[in-house]
Amino acid sequence: MTRTVVESKTKTAIIGFDEPFCVIGERINPTGRKALAAQLELGDFSTVEKDAVEQVACGATMLDINSGAVFKNKMAEDPRYADNNFVEPPLMKQLIELVQGVVDVPLCIDSSVPGALEAGLEMSEGRPLLNSVTGEEERLEAILPLVKKYNVPVVAISNDDTGISEDPDVRFAVAKKIVERAADFGIPAHDIVVDPLVMPVGAMGTAGLQVFSLVKRLRDELKVNTTCGASNISFGLPHRHGINSAFLTMAIGAGMTSAIMNPVRAVEMEAVRAANYLMNHDAGGGTWIGFSRVLDKVDEGVPFPEAAQAAAAGGGRRDGRRRRRA
Amino acid sequence: MTRTVVESKTKTAIIGFDEPFCVIGERINPTGRKALAAQLELGDFSTVEKDAVEQVACGATMLDINSGAVFKNKMAEDPRYADNNFVEPPLMKQLIELVQGVVDVPLCIDSSVPGALEAGLEMSEGRPLLNSVTGEEERLEAILPLVKKYNVPVVAISNDDTGISEDPDVRFAVAKKIVERAADFGIPAHDIVVDPLVMPVGAMGTAGLQVFSLVKRLRDELKVNTTCGASNISFGLPHRHGINSAFLTMAIGAGMTSAIMNPVRAVEMEAVRAANYLMNHDAGGGTWIGFSRVLDKVDEGVPFPEAAQAAAAGGGRRDGRRRRRA
Repeated sequence: MTRTVVESKTKTAIIGFDEPFCVIGERINPTGRKALAAQLELGDFSTVEKDAVEQVACGATMLDINSGAVFKNKMAEDPRYADNNFVEPPLMKQLIELVQGVVDVPLCIDSSVPGALEAGLEMSEGRPLLNSVTGEEERLEAILPLVKKYNVPVVAISNDDTGISEDPDVRFAVAKKIVERAADFGIPAHDIVVDPLVMPVGAMGTAGLQVFSLVKRLRDELKVNTTCGASNISFGLPHRHGINSAFLTMAIGAGMTSAIMNPVRAVEMEAVRAANYLMNHDAGGGTWIGFSRVLDKVDEGVPFPEAAQAAAAGGGRRDGRRRRRA
Repeated sequence: MTRTVVESKTKTAIIGFDEPFCVIGERINPTGRKALAAQLELGDFSTVEKDAVEQVACGATMLDINSGAVFKNKMAEDPRYADNNFVEPPLMKQLIELVQGVVDVPLCIDSSVPGALEAGLEMSEGRPLLNSVTGEEERLEAILPLVKKYNVPVVAISNDDTGISEDPDVRFAVAKKIVERAADFGIPAHDIVVDPLVMPVGAMGTAGLQVFSLVKRLRDELKVNTTCGASNISFGLPHRHGINSAFLTMAIGAGMTSAIMNPVRAVEMEAVRAANYLMNHDAGGGTWIGFSRVLDKVDEGVPFPEAAQAAAAGGGRRDGRRRRRA
């Protein structure tokens, strides 16, 4: 059975067909978070620290670290800041250093800038997951040598120089090409985690079915692990958590082994925990029962991250809420 | 693609591979509801009426009508009441007559007493679903002639004279035997809806996986629709709704086409609605968007049945709550 081994200095996370679903926390990402980007520009890493600790307490197996910040004020003063090749490599190092200082889970180094990925690889303790390569020729040639040089696993996104195809057969073919090209570099299939790309179901009714069938094919034919940006599925729809939760459980049932997602949402994490149990990846139900105590607190009105942190710190101590607010 | 046609006097429900999941409302069942049994003994059908209307408003495609009441006081006075062959046939007729008077969805006639099933068949308008036959010899010989005589579809439960096997291969073999025996009576496979039997995951870690793989085999090899008592999966566990919801979506993803379940629970119905959308069985998302308006009301504190009834009555009118309480 395929196993992708990802490591921090002290912890090992395995993405695998016979493992509980790997939750990759998505929060440390200034791309879509202007307030966070503004903080980082000022050298304020307090949100990053909070997000690292909270995500791990809420159940993240791994944390994604994305350095895609735009520093608007610095850019106005110094044109070099308009270039992400200038901004991201040192920022990635700072982010990783800080996160490694507060949590011990393995990391996923996420950037569109090869220099930032290499900076992240240099800074990371253990064996991080690299995010990402695509089927684009330039990207393949830039990233696969890094993957080989550092002997790390990599996320492979199934788009290429023609863009993102709406045809799942084309997306499968792109994934296959990446796996084959990686093999040319001596990178084994079990170190490639394919993202089959999730379209919004509100725009394309077959979006869910496409993912479920692609995951099966990727697993059966290419023997690779899979991941995705799960919340894309519900883009533009009301009650997104309901769609996200159903999508996650159905994708897990189809064989998906990880997702880049927000672990600070109780509804989605409940879905993942329940799906793990139903996949027989929670022997005896111990994880479900522990999680259900956190849900008890949430039902009492305690915010999920607080309840999860209290449980992580003291086995579900009853004073979690007051302690935090003191 | 397999289609099981079930009808009331005016409505058709299709259980099918290409249809939205068929929700069979389980509430009208005195077996596990002592208060309801006591009411029925007194000739009070008010709860049945309320349950019929609420379940349909909440999204039941079909209603299960179970006549398995024990009339304790009557039994003390008249020993004939100790025999369900005496109690159930007239009760089934009363229940069906009443339910047909207040809702227009097709019915599922549910009893362990053949006489009650036949009474139900006589009383039902349209083409009800019969619940159930098993692989037990006596049951096969008693029920299949009824199925043939009335030309109705039937639920086939995959246990036999040896009981309920924990081995899914044995349960598949029992289902196959029922389908073959039915064929001897001239009953086609598309009129058989197999219940592969759901074990509690708390007692058997493979319970979920067993159902998912059985559903696939029943669909691919026997070409039959499937159903189950969904909430069995979470028996004995905390936060059952979370397990039930994940189970329903994963079973739908695996190809299950109906379940006997409680439609008055918003969490489970949200899961079913979301899964329908992700299976591309909610073209354009209209059903999801309509349902999300009901969830908005639930988020505001309106009980789900009230919110659903208000939406069903007036397209989500804002005075739903007050009107009902007036």
